[in-house]
Amino acid sequence: MIYILVNHYWEWLQVHNLRFLRVFLFPSFQATISVLLSFFLCIIFGPRIIGWLRRQKIGDLPEFDQAEINKLMEGKKGTPTMGGILIIASIAITTLLMADLRNFYVQMALLCLLWLGAVGATDDWLKLTAGRRQGSRQGLTTLEKLLFQVGLGVVLCYFTFQYHQHIPAANRFYFPFLKNVYVPLGMTGFVIIGTLVMTGSSNAVNLTDGLDGLASGCTAIVSFAFLVLALIVGTDDLANTLLLTYIQASDQMAVLAGAMTGASLGFLWYNCNPAKVFMGDTGSLALGGLLGYIAIVTRQELMLFMVGGIFVLEALSVILQVSYFKYTRRRFGEGRRIFLMSPLHHHFQRKGWTENQVVVRFWLLTAMLAAMALATVKLR
Amino acid sequence: MIYILVNHYWEWLQVHNLRFLRVFLFPSFQATISVLLSFFLCIIFGPRIIGWLRRQKIGDLPEFDQAEINKLMEGKKGTPTMGGILIIASIAITTLLMADLRNFYVQMALLCLLWLGAVGATDDWLKLTAGRRQGSRQGLTTLEKLLFQVGLGVVLCYFTFQYHQHIPAANRFYFPFLKNVYVPLGMTGFVIIGTLVMTGSSNAVNLTDGLDGLASGCTAIVSFAFLVLALIVGTDDLANTLLLTYIQASDQMAVLAGAMTGASLGFLWYNCNPAKVFMGDTGSLALGGLLGYIAIVTRQELMLFMVGGIFVLEALSVILQVSYFKYTRRRFGEGRRIFLMSPLHHHFQRKGWTENQVVVRFWLLTAMLAAMALATVKLR
Repeated sequence: MIYILVNHYWEWLQVHNLRFLRVFLFPSFQATISVLLSFFLCIIFGPRIIGWLRRQKIGDLPEFDQAEINKLMEGKKGTPTMGGILIIASIAITTLLMADLRNFYVQMALLCLLWLGAVGATDDWLKLTAGRRQGSRQGLTTLEKLLFQVGLGVVLCYFTFQYHQHIPAANRFYFPFLKNVYVPLGMTGFVIIGTLVMTGSSNAVNLTDGLDGLASGCTAIVSFAFLVLALIVGTDDLANTLLLTYIQASDQMAVLAGAMTGASLGFLWYNCNPAKVFMGDTGSLALGGLLGYIAIVTRQELMLFMVGGIFVLEALSVILQVSYFKYTRRRFGEGRRIFLMSPLHHHFQRKGWTENQVVVRFWLLTAMLAAMALATVKLR
Repeated sequence: MIYILVNHYWEWLQVHNLRFLRVFLFPSFQATISVLLSFFLCIIFGPRIIGWLRRQKIGDLPEFDQAEINKLMEGKKGTPTMGGILIIASIAITTLLMADLRNFYVQMALLCLLWLGAVGATDDWLKLTAGRRQGSRQGLTTLEKLLFQVGLGVVLCYFTFQYHQHIPAANRFYFPFLKNVYVPLGMTGFVIIGTLVMTGSSNAVNLTDGLDGLASGCTAIVSFAFLVLALIVGTDDLANTLLLTYIQASDQMAVLAGAMTGASLGFLWYNCNPAKVFMGDTGSLALGGLLGYIAIVTRQELMLFMVGGIFVLEALSVILQVSYFKYTRRRFGEGRRIFLMSPLHHHFQRKGWTENQVVVRFWLLTAMLAAMALATVKLR
């Protein structure tokens, strides 16, 4: 909004000695302010929202269900979930204030954020209030969630592909390290790959969200890397110097990425061990999906695979564990395991790392993956 | 070293199709690789050095002294200190490999790192082995430490001032936000301000080092911000575009800053709560002093004051607490306190935050200060 206002009243601002406000038109400044703004929005509104969530949960839930929930939470009883609404609200408000809202990608990204946030919130809410209603359900089924994710992916990718129709460079699939190699994508290819990236990323972040601060911290680092990437890809000179494909108007994705970074860090203030709130599916599905969409817009799908390596490994550990267990049960009569436990973070807990060590070390690895990713940009 | 080799054998490399090695001449690439290299050096050599330190301490110390040390460590007995040698070795090796060693600033920075590392190590070693010798001392006195720090500060700043003699822009004091305001510094002014910055920074990091991972995490973030600042200040076009003063050859400070970031993060792997090793004075004095020197070279002393706000507050809390206590004791007969406890991190622990919450929240604040600092660059 500020972007549009400054743009619209530029002559008036010049006359009134407010020329310095033009900084709000620079993506790098927009993105930096977004980090700060969404961080402080989370910090300020955190206690109120956490208090409200706690009242919702503790006040109404009958005792006989509380016991089961407690077992699930393993000594973390009383900590409210669904804190993701704090993250989503911060990102949405920050984006509405700081980004160029006429930008097509920004509109789609907001749609993605709110849609997946709504899916996650429905799921969290059903779980949370399961005990209150007769014969009620424990959240959405996996299939239902997947349907909503794939539906969103198909819709967003279809519109994005159409938007790119006269920009062939934006409908290609690129590879890290290789500067002149790419695969041109037709509509089907673009939609399939895009939907896979968004759904995969959304679910991978969801699986990662199992220890205090793990998902929020990793998301903050990954989205910071994408802030930098979006600034490069969305700036003509920079993209050309670094031999990346310039994608017009994608610089506004840096604002979204910045808002994500700030909101994740602000949420971490309350989410760090011992957590006062969990993000729930509300947060993780939306954050993961939005990361996926930013990667699609900047044509850096494989980069997300690399920087978000922890998310990928967490998801892979579940897939491998379950498949291997089923396979060995059919083949040898008894199911065998690859990891002591899945998702991966529990494996390391079983190995003797404390919860906090797993979390901090996974953050550190994510930071190194981000450094590697930025190094590959220079290596093309 | 690699920098000099690639430079020297450039023609040979071109003939042998190794042109891509020229990336090692780009400061941004050098710095990114430095982050990765020093991180993995810490990770790989960590267990060996920690094991060695543990044997030094636990094997030889007589029981009657152990009790006192335990009291100081409050339930952290058995955790070896002096892990800073891991940090210093990683930074030194990384710098020797990646930086342009003919660069004057790099040579001075290495001198700073090793000097303060040696002062800190002497202090740690005397404390550690106090029980072994008859009538032995408990580390260096505050005055001794200060003398060594001030001595180093004066020497480094004097040579740096001389080096700048024909670059008047590099002997000025600059302010954030203000683009055309500066104070030209004579030799005395330069040396006094420089020594104050280095000594202050060194001791502030030292005071901050009181909770698992606090100093290492904050240092990693601050040095990352200075990596970015050094790249800007040391690159002609960038500095001019952002209205910062271009300081020739200061871009190599980005390599030092990168090595610091990586080493701090690598050390954090073992230092995060529950810590397996502490950095001790060996690490904190050297890290703080080096940050100070990088700030002096890039002419960003006040920026260090801002980004390192947590270090500043920690030091201030001690100064205020002690002065107020002494003042009120003289004035009212009984000493009064401003904080529940100083340094500041213990104040928040007393307020009910857990150790880990204090640490993560101080990291988050440092990250936001870094974002603010980078935003002010754009605001000039």
